[in-house]
Amino acid sequence: MLEDKNQQRTSLAELGEFGLINHITKYFKTENSSTIKAIGDDAAVLDASEKQTLVTTDLLIEGVHFDLSYMPLKHLGYKAVVVNLSDVYAMNGVAEQITVSLAVSNRFSLEAIEELYAGIQLACETYNVDLIGGDTTSSTKGMLISVTAIGKVNKDEAVYRNTAKETDLIVVTGDLGAAYLGLQVLEREKQVFKVDPNNQPDLENYTYLIERQLKPEARKDVAGLLQELEIKPTSMIDVSDGLSSELFHICTQSKVGCKVYEDKLPLDPQVISACEEFELDSTMVALSGGEDYELLFTVGIADFDKIKGNPHFSIIGHVTAENQGLQLITRAGQEIGLKAQGWNSLNKQD
Amino acid sequence: MLEDKNQQRTSLAELGEFGLINHITKYFKTENSSTIKAIGDDAAVLDASEKQTLVTTDLLIEGVHFDLSYMPLKHLGYKAVVVNLSDVYAMNGVAEQITVSLAVSNRFSLEAIEELYAGIQLACETYNVDLIGGDTTSSTKGMLISVTAIGKVNKDEAVYRNTAKETDLIVVTGDLGAAYLGLQVLEREKQVFKVDPNNQPDLENYTYLIERQLKPEARKDVAGLLQELEIKPTSMIDVSDGLSSELFHICTQSKVGCKVYEDKLPLDPQVISACEEFELDSTMVALSGGEDYELLFTVGIADFDKIKGNPHFSIIGHVTAENQGLQLITRAGQEIGLKAQGWNSLNKQD
Repeated sequence: MLEDKNQQRTSLAELGEFGLINHITKYFKTENSSTIKAIGDDAAVLDASEKQTLVTTDLLIEGVHFDLSYMPLKHLGYKAVVVNLSDVYAMNGVAEQITVSLAVSNRFSLEAIEELYAGIQLACETYNVDLIGGDTTSSTKGMLISVTAIGKVNKDEAVYRNTAKETDLIVVTGDLGAAYLGLQVLEREKQVFKVDPNNQPDLENYTYLIERQLKPEARKDVAGLLQELEIKPTSMIDVSDGLSSELFHICTQSKVGCKVYEDKLPLDPQVISACEEFELDSTMVALSGGEDYELLFTVGIADFDKIKGNPHFSIIGHVTAENQGLQLITRAGQEIGLKAQGWNSLNKQD
Repeated sequence: MLEDKNQQRTSLAELGEFGLINHITKYFKTENSSTIKAIGDDAAVLDASEKQTLVTTDLLIEGVHFDLSYMPLKHLGYKAVVVNLSDVYAMNGVAEQITVSLAVSNRFSLEAIEELYAGIQLACETYNVDLIGGDTTSSTKGMLISVTAIGKVNKDEAVYRNTAKETDLIVVTGDLGAAYLGLQVLEREKQVFKVDPNNQPDLENYTYLIERQLKPEARKDVAGLLQELEIKPTSMIDVSDGLSSELFHICTQSKVGCKVYEDKLPLDPQVISACEEFELDSTMVALSGGEDYELLFTVGIADFDKIKGNPHFSIIGHVTAENQGLQLITRAGQEIGLKAQGWNSLNKQD
């Protein structure tokens, strides 16, 4: 996480905007047959055939969404793409294209931008998406990245947030809370580094947590897993702001309530041990941590036998009537009202 | 252009991100049948039918692309949409949807954001496009807006930049240079205001220039005008960075040269008089001013009779062989090599 002070530095002003675009985009190839024209014209051209198009966008701002003191630029590029693809998968779709707009202050060299785009390119290859456009400009302060992802879904097979039904089972993929704890570990190391720059951090006990924070993956595989099981979710959303916040989205939009069981929340062993160390309640972390990029979905009760015991999925509760509200059932059997404590980025200062 | 100091001020932190999104989006209706699902889920869902999809995106940053001391927020919202739609029209397409991502520091109140979205909404209504998604977040400094526009074009009817042919005529819509001069007038008034805040500016001689800068329109009408004339352009681009820069894009990508005639450049009388007043060369302003959002296109020589004398179009030159380069023929008959002096936003300081 230390900077190489001897690295080459080419100023962006030397290259100019068009030079920068040419330099960056020459490494990108398009792979999807639906990409008719990618970068290089006023707009990209896509073929839609019989399917429906999915569009989603996210804005990431230095100092608000990421901290370059522990987020390597390549990881940042990768993550900026992945968080958008996650939204496409949460619609039951296949991601095929992205646009990336970037604003950077002259603090950043060409080599820094290349690192960022190396991460973007790796994500494009890993997830089989094409970079089809974007905008590059200067900023008056720091870096910001705006990514739009475009995907396809078979006609009328998109899975929405507002279609959960009473008695449906609530299912989440993977495990929860690790990305949030990874951030806590990195923040702590940053403070240690400020006090003693020669201290070598021992991060061995936190490898999974840090990877979940710095290099999250989107659940591209879930659509296929569900298809094999012959399950179509009744509603779906990705876990970006935190489980609790996502449950609120589904329940509010579907006009239902839910019961979620504390002892069913999937936690990695590193999450449990790090929670002890940081004196955090692991249930709170799982509910409100965010940035897990797992999928939360509901399925009809008839699908219980198909999904139970599957290592990819945890059944964490069920949908209730709207007037029941959103309830957490604790290990002690108590009912506690859930709060949407998703991360609110609008409280930052100028 | 003066701020009302007594206006209501609701802080954005009070509302939170989801509150802000709900508040803003309740005024937006969707109009296009291709918009299956707009705001409110992980991604928007669009129907593509038999057509091809166009995607284009732009990033606007306070202090780089706009100055709120003379750009009213409603105009900014309108312009942020229009500049993206212009790229869709430059592909010979019809714009149908936009996403808008916005980052603001806590300097901005809810009322300010409402003003911005009132402009976005007006543009949506004027151009018949649907707002289908976006992201709202805080920034550490100022305001930035990222807009993605999505459009449709009949299969294989997109008009690209790389398809101009030798002997083609070069045509531009409307007139050039006014938006740049509008900016000069506004910058001058800003300086006057700093010295004497009680000075009342007399802007009557600059109404067209200021309107072109603060409330540009995209040429939605051109596709229809060309269809009536039974003309299909051989290449097309919109004039955002300046005529000269756009000619370079077309010529470089099409591997051709061009001859453009100084006396054919379309100038509004206000442009001519303001150039005299500011001691600027009107040809330079027309070539390098930018932000005109007119369309520059090429047509086969056989279409000369169809297009000549049409008040919407000016034939400004013709395409030559690549080795001839890009030439301006002056009023005196001299050939001068053109330079791409489009506005380069990467030279700004941190």
